[in-house]
Amino acid sequence: MTELSNFKDKITIAGAGPVGAMLAIILSRANHLVDVYESRPDPRAHNAQQGRSINITLSERAWAALEIIGLDKQVRQFATPLYKRVFHSKNGHLSEHSYGKKNQAIWSISREKLTEILLNQAEQEAQVNLHFEQRLTHIDFTTACTSFSYLKAGRKGHKEVDADYVFAADGAFSKVRRLAQETPRFSYSQRYMEQSYIELTIATNVDGSPKLSPNASHIWPRKDFLLIALPNNDGSFTCTLYLNYQGETSFSSLTTQKTVQDFFHHNFSDVISLLENPVTEFLKKTPNPLFLVNVDPWVINNKVALIGDAAHAMLPFYGHGLNSSFEDCHVIAELIQRHNDDWIKILPAYYLQRKDNTNAISKLSNDYFFDISHFDTDNDELLSQKIADKFALKSPELWPSLDHMISLSRDISYAKAREISLEQKKIMTEIMNIKDIHLCWQEDDIYQKIKKMALMRLLPLLK
Amino acid sequence: MTELSNFKDKITIAGAGPVGAMLAIILSRANHLVDVYESRPDPRAHNAQQGRSINITLSERAWAALEIIGLDKQVRQFATPLYKRVFHSKNGHLSEHSYGKKNQAIWSISREKLTEILLNQAEQEAQVNLHFEQRLTHIDFTTACTSFSYLKAGRKGHKEVDADYVFAADGAFSKVRRLAQETPRFSYSQRYMEQSYIELTIATNVDGSPKLSPNASHIWPRKDFLLIALPNNDGSFTCTLYLNYQGETSFSSLTTQKTVQDFFHHNFSDVISLLENPVTEFLKKTPNPLFLVNVDPWVINNKVALIGDAAHAMLPFYGHGLNSSFEDCHVIAELIQRHNDDWIKILPAYYLQRKDNTNAISKLSNDYFFDISHFDTDNDELLSQKIADKFALKSPELWPSLDHMISLSRDISYAKAREISLEQKKIMTEIMNIKDIHLCWQEDDIYQKIKKMALMRLLPLLK
Repeated sequence: MTELSNFKDKITIAGAGPVGAMLAIILSRANHLVDVYESRPDPRAHNAQQGRSINITLSERAWAALEIIGLDKQVRQFATPLYKRVFHSKNGHLSEHSYGKKNQAIWSISREKLTEILLNQAEQEAQVNLHFEQRLTHIDFTTACTSFSYLKAGRKGHKEVDADYVFAADGAFSKVRRLAQETPRFSYSQRYMEQSYIELTIATNVDGSPKLSPNASHIWPRKDFLLIALPNNDGSFTCTLYLNYQGETSFSSLTTQKTVQDFFHHNFSDVISLLENPVTEFLKKTPNPLFLVNVDPWVINNKVALIGDAAHAMLPFYGHGLNSSFEDCHVIAELIQRHNDDWIKILPAYYLQRKDNTNAISKLSNDYFFDISHFDTDNDELLSQKIADKFALKSPELWPSLDHMISLSRDISYAKAREISLEQKKIMTEIMNIKDIHLCWQEDDIYQKIKKMALMRLLPLLK
Repeated sequence: MTELSNFKDKITIAGAGPVGAMLAIILSRANHLVDVYESRPDPRAHNAQQGRSINITLSERAWAALEIIGLDKQVRQFATPLYKRVFHSKNGHLSEHSYGKKNQAIWSISREKLTEILLNQAEQEAQVNLHFEQRLTHIDFTTACTSFSYLKAGRKGHKEVDADYVFAADGAFSKVRRLAQETPRFSYSQRYMEQSYIELTIATNVDGSPKLSPNASHIWPRKDFLLIALPNNDGSFTCTLYLNYQGETSFSSLTTQKTVQDFFHHNFSDVISLLENPVTEFLKKTPNPLFLVNVDPWVINNKVALIGDAAHAMLPFYGHGLNSSFEDCHVIAELIQRHNDDWIKILPAYYLQRKDNTNAISKLSNDYFFDISHFDTDNDELLSQKIADKFALKSPELWPSLDHMISLSRDISYAKAREISLEQKKIMTEIMNIKDIHLCWQEDDIYQKIKKMALMRLLPLLK
């Protein structure tokens, strides 16, 4: 509902996904007048239950952002805590890895539900107006004036919208960003990965019980491809199969009932009986591409700013696309207070503060795909992990895990987390080069060696 | 002129620059029906003499392509041979470096003149139609059907064009490429450099004689910025000043008569008196951005192919943007013959053959900016160059210069040239690490050391 009170600035937001909605709430409470435009229909008006829900995971960064708008409790009611990753090896062996301490978790929630909660709240804000099915057609990057087209009673309409500022929260395929490519000195890249993905389902048992341990994420690492399952609230799991789009074993080469069946039997024999018609679904579904986006700058003429996936769409393997986007919003909220609504200061500071951090989490997400798909219960990596875990158990203050830094911490920036993680990897490489490390890794001498290196090389970063 | 004879395929070319024109001639002579669409007016109808001409340099790769369409002799009449680079140090010291042997040259020509010759020839081809002032608005990447808008008697017209294939020769800001960004799995990047550039002029003396030695390119390397002068046919020089767009010494910071004057006096005292109103021109002109483009793939649905700057716009410092684009055309001509007009084979082979090579010359162009702007007559680099030159003089077959490979050779691919050049750099780094190399570099021992490395590491690449 709009009340035209004494608002400060008039702000247009492109995109009414979770990021656009959260930003609208933040800006409205900072007493700006906010109009949110979305090309698609209102998702709440549709039966979102028809399709299987896409699950996303919320880390502490997301909770911190949800807290400042007071929605954390409501969201948590619909979220499932995940305490660990469970790796499923080809021969059915399970290897469990906690995300953190006993009660620490990341949380799985359906994207639809989260969006619904945020949109409902945005709509209740005094100075937010939501406009669905209005397609951005033009943007003047010097005046922040935008144009939208829409259908009304079957006829095409067109309107122009004045504003002081525009935020582009219109996602990985951002139209604002596409138009910005023609502004001067706008560097941009979109890079597609060899892998694509489809979604598969693991239903509950007949009695409604889950077929896999329900408070965990499940991973089937198979080097060149990967299956991940995240639990839904009802005990079912939404699975994502990542596989090359082209090549010897790929979505393009596996096109018959027989070859797809062989593919599952050979690589996923332990899970094939749990999946709902995997062969039929595989053959029926169009694989979705994976890509990442890099943009420089995010702020144009200090009038238009990119936020969320529009600014930094990344690979989904770490589950931090939305977490980093919510953190973008959180930072905007803080900067508005710090700079007393002075956008000349807020927008450059926002870009400066976020760019290195989202670069870092984007790079971590790239590396993580390799790490988890190559996870092997028999090889050195596991020993190196064991040694690190052992050290971390004795000296947790010197050896935070990457999960801890990325997902369970609110204070360590992504950039800092990556820096620390890279240094930890270097230290572990040196440790693994020690002669007969397989035999001597439990000795105190090794612990002392790691401690010395950690004190010298990690502690300065952790301060 | 069109004669609707028994043509093989109907091909649309977007862009009537030198690349579009050359490609049209090649395709027409392979008996295809070619329509070339250009959004701008016919450049031949305008007084191209009004503005200062932009000069481009033609290497052997360009001559090879011009020969197959029989235009080399005509073009050479309007081109000026450049036999050497002349580096001008801050204190006025000159350092001359030949491109090759005595009579080997690269050639400078005005872009307008070259385009004019190619367009005149294209127009005379049996199966080429040129269409100016027709703006591409849409392209169907599965059918190769394109749409164009145009003005006729002040009214906006619109037409659809069917074809079997589309070539996008529409340059660094390619509209086809922009539209292609929405096709699946199209990776794309445009990266802007910190530097921008403006053009300045050195007129002839009153008697018409040139103010600098006329058969050379002239370079004023100043680390963070750079001035380059290329001769025109009339004895004048077109100069390009490359300078950061923002920062301490930049186009953005130098905004007053006084600061610009100081800038020239401090950095270009030896050339300021030769330039035509450099301070006024500097303050008047809008700096042009520099950027490079990377695209993957260049061929979409085997229906639409990018060529020239549309596929691989690169930095201009090596002067190989157009040379590599003409080589693209040359390769198309060869592949048409080799594969008997089978486009299913031609287009993938074209992409495969050109991608690594244009990547290589693009990377060489990036490096070259650093190399020439940091060229210093007093430092190690010059000694290392001296040692390499001395070796090359005695064993030219083992040590081709980069200029020779890139600009004076037709047989060494860009990718191979870069590989050899990188290995040469590694060898020279090892040589420069020899103790007291400044004292002993002329000794036979050093020659033998280089020879041994060249035989082992360069000869296999040169075969």
